[in-house]
This record gives sequence, structure tokens and C-alpha cells, in this order.
Amino acid sequence: MNWTSQIEAAHARIAPYIRETPVLAGAYLDLPMPVWLKLEHLQHTGSFKARGAFNTLLSSDVPSAGLVAASGGNHGAAVAFAAQKLGYSAHIFVPELAGASKINVIKTTGATLSVVPGAYADAMQAALAYEAATGAMQIHAYDELPTVAGQGSLMLEWEAQGLEADTVLIAVGGGGLIAGALAWLQGRRKVVAVEPETSCALHTALCAGQPVDVEVSGIAANALGARRVGQICFDLAQNQNIQAVTVADQAIADAQAMLWHNMRQFVEPAGAAALAALMSGAYQPTKGEKVAVLICGANPAPDPFL
Amino acid sequence: MNWTSQIEAAHARIAPYIRETPVLAGAYLDLPMPVWLKLEHLQHTGSFKARGAFNTLLSSDVPSAGLVAASGGNHGAAVAFAAQKLGYSAHIFVPELAGASKINVIKTTGATLSVVPGAYADAMQAALAYEAATGAMQIHAYDELPTVAGQGSLMLEWEAQGLEADTVLIAVGGGGLIAGALAWLQGRRKVVAVEPETSCALHTALCAGQPVDVEVSGIAANALGARRVGQICFDLAQNQNIQAVTVADQAIADAQAMLWHNMRQFVEPAGAAALAALMSGAYQPTKGEKVAVLICGANPAPDPFL
Repeated sequence: MNWTSQIEAAHARIAPYIRETPVLAGAYLDLPMPVWLKLEHLQHTGSFKARGAFNTLLSSDVPSAGLVAASGGNHGAAVAFAAQKLGYSAHIFVPELAGASKINVIKTTGATLSVVPGAYADAMQAALAYEAATGAMQIHAYDELPTVAGQGSLMLEWEAQGLEADTVLIAVGGGGLIAGALAWLQGRRKVVAVEPETSCALHTALCAGQPVDVEVSGIAANALGARRVGQICFDLAQNQNIQAVTVADQAIADAQAMLWHNMRQFVEPAGAAALAALMSGAYQPTKGEKVAVLICGANPAPDPFL
Repeated sequence: MNWTSQIEAAHARIAPYIRETPVLAGAYLDLPMPVWLKLEHLQHTGSFKARGAFNTLLSSDVPSAGLVAASGGNHGAAVAFAAQKLGYSAHIFVPELAGASKINVIKTTGATLSVVPGAYADAMQAALAYEAATGAMQIHAYDELPTVAGQGSLMLEWEAQGLEADTVLIAVGGGGLIAGALAWLQGRRKVVAVEPETSCALHTALCAGQPVDVEVSGIAANALGARRVGQICFDLAQNQNIQAVTVADQAIADAQAMLWHNMRQFVEPAGAAALAALMSGAYQPTKGEKVAVLICGANPAPDPFL
């Protein structure tokens, strides 16, 4: 797999449809340590997921039955948005857990929406049944090459924007985002995976030596609560021997509050998880180490405008 | 008055203390018309007011009695923050109207806070009494040269960041921010003043030929509800014969909601007022005219983290 060319091609393909999100230099937050930031929550539909969704749709032959996706919310919103922009029909299955903010984004696209009782796995089961019945194209949330290549465009973009950091902290759910970063960086910078203590599929997989099922819960569960980390992510993370740390829900909530109080960014818990690792000491940089944090999603519940 | 050198000096003076806030290019919002944006609500204390506050304090001999300010909230928060950073004591008087978000910013600085029953004028009366009794230095919210020069640094900064627009829409309360912009631009770009229909001190003054008292109310009143526009602002606006438009509260609320839904920026009503003028048609650009909008404040009520 030549990830570099895959990601460069993805970036060129999706550039007309996605936003180059703003970056902030290390001193911006005025914390005890400098933190380089990328505000990817200003992306279309409020998360990085738009990158993978556009790359997948733009590099696929979409059948007349259209698209189907199961999602905790952000992936579904991204697929629905990309489908709308590219003129495809889409049916999105989400669990109730997705919450009003993410569900509303899906609704505004005109996609068909099914809110499924239960958790993500139940939504996935419904989506698989729909795929089998209709022939619609299933868009996986994280463990497909076009998805990972699309998410990888984020790190390409950040480097092109002049990223100075030695180390990048990235929140992990199913692992599509961090897989894209690892695939792009190829060890040029240190990448640290950050997961909630209550939803740590990558950390558990790295300990077990293979992806395994985990229980998921906690305040970031609708975005980071993957039952099993993607194989693509696992292979990249294992091969590069990356560090994976976990953070408590309270640390995530503290980071979320800090982003609001310090610079009026109202992100969802998953969007603040990577920062929580730095603030709580779950990741401790060495002296002089420049650390960057990716703010990856901002579809919170409750939504102040719903 | 050599405004150019005043504003350049202000910018150099305050640079170590303020943030260079992000800008977004015209296509970012994906609206029917391009809109260049500056996200000044990511400034310290959530509004541009930090610029004027730091410039005033850094160019003054502060007496041992410290500082006093009356404010609808944002100016008081900025003075309190600048005082904390520079090691001065401050006593801030705000009306109840200021709201929990702005009041909380003031509290976190360690400044003494008095919440005065009634409106801004009552807070100002209390602040004047405090000044007379203690000898504290009164920091005016908008109608002093160091304040205007500090706010002018924003437009200097935006131009240095490569602002492409022909026209800049700026919300007006007492007029310190737009005065700074007019003083810096000196007619090089068109500046349009935007006020709520229910709080339009500049529009009324330009019609009357001089600053006059107006009634103030509406959803942006704690930030834009100045009873009388500043003389510095009025003189600059009259001399440059600028266009002043007004927007309904509903248009402001619509712009506020759009900023949230489109790019997850949760700003206060005053912060969305300039955009409301463009979205509602209160300001109608000519074909090909490039319009920039300054997002100036983000301390909303209710505050989602209080």
C-alpha cells in the first residue's frame, strides 16, 4: 500500500468539497504548556468525517439504490452531507445515543433517517439488512481504505499549514482518523492515541495483540464508542508501536469546559478528548517537546440551538 | 491625529498580550455569497475588547487605587483580564443585563465585581461614584483614544493576514471597534456600520448630525446597547460618510443560529449582527463585491457551561 500517493490523491479529490480548517499556534490557549491546535470541528457537518465520506463517494461507483451507513452520528452526518452535495440518495441508521445535534445535521441534508433503539451495533444490524434488501452501497465508518485515505488528508493539510509540533495527540474511536494520520506521517512525527477509559478499543487491542471486542460507555460513547478497532488502524498502530493512553470522563469534561472558557469553542466530548490527555497528565511531554492536539468534533448534546 | 502611527504603536504594544485571531476565506461558510470572516470572538475574554483594554493600561500611569470600569459585560471582562495580567487591581460595575457568561469571565480574573440593579447607565453612575471616592482610573468602554487605537489593531492585523474584501461589515454599539477600523483604513476599503433596530445610536446620530441619546433594547443590548455613540466614532463616520444599516432581532438570531449550524461557532447576538446584515439583505453587495464580516463577540446567555 502506497499510503502517500493514496492520501495525496484523496486530498486532491476532496479539496473542492471540504474545508481547510484553521490552525492555531502553540501560545494561543495561554496554558502552562504550548499546544498547537487544528480546529477540525469547523469542518462541514462538524467533524473530520466529511473527508472520508467525500473520498469514498468520489472514488466509487454508487449504485442506483444509493448509499447506506450506520453511525453513532458524525459519520452518518458526513455521508448524508456528501450524498446531498454529490446528488446521491442516502439512508442513515443511527442509535438513539447519537443525540439531537448529530441527528439534526442528518435531517437537514434530506437523507432518509432511521433512529434505531439500542446502541451502535443495532444500527449497524439495521443498515446491513437494508443493504441486503436494496443493494445500496454500505459506507463503513472507519475500516475501509478510501475512508482512511480521506481522513489522512487532514494531516497532509496540517503539515502544509506549517505544523511545528513533534507530537500529535488524536482521539480514537474506531481508528479511521488516527490511521490516516499514521499512514500519512509514516513515523515523521510521534502520534499518540487517546481513548476514554470507558471506550478503549485500540488500547485493548494493542495489549491483546489483535482487535478484540470491548464494552463501550461514557460521555464520548456516541463518537468514540467503537466496539472493535479497525484492522487498518490496528496494523498501522502496531507496526509503528505507538503510545495509546486513556482518559477519564471527568478529564474530558474538564477539557471541554476549558475550550469554552478559554476560547469559546463548544465541542463535543470526543472533540476534547485529545486535549484532556495533555491537561490531565495522561500524556506527559518531555521538556521542550512540542505537542499538537486535534480538535475533531463539535456536535454536542444538548445542542444549544435545538 | 495621526491614526496610522497611533494604531501601529498600539499593535506593537499589545502584541505580547492579545491573540492573532483566525480568519477564513470567502468560500468557507458555503453560503450563496462569499463572506470573508475574522473570528475575533476567539480573542481573550471572548471579544475584541481586550485590545483596547491592554492598549489603555499599557499606555497609562495606573494609580495605586487601581482601575474602575462600567460595562455591559465584555468591556468589563477585558479590563479585568488585562488588569490581572498586568498586576493591577480592578473594580468592575455591570448591570444585571450583562448575564452569567460575561459576569463569569470577570469573576475568574479576581477583579472586584459589582452587579448593579438596572441598566448600563446605572452601572456607569456607580463606577463614577467609585472613581470619585477612591481615585481609581476610569477606563471608558469606547470613546477614548487609546481604546480606539487598540481596537484599530484588529483591522491592521486582518490586513496583514491578507484580507481580500472590498467591504467590511462591523457591528456597532458605542462605536469603539468601528472607529478603530475607520481610523486604520482611512477609506481604503468600504466600512458599513451594522446596528440592531432597537439599539442604533450611530445611525440615529448620523441622521441627527450629532450624537444624541437613544432608547436601547433587544437581544444584543448588553453589548450593542449604547445610549449615545462615541464622539470619536461619530466624527470618523461622518467625515467618511459611511453607510449605517440596521437589522431586526430576528435577523440577528437567524445569523447566530446559522453560525452554529454551519460551522459550530456559538457566538452572542452582537457577534452575529454584522453577518445578519448580509444574510437579511439589510446590506446588499453589488455584483462581484467582496464582503467581509467581523465576528466580534461570543459570550452568550445562557452559557452552556454555567
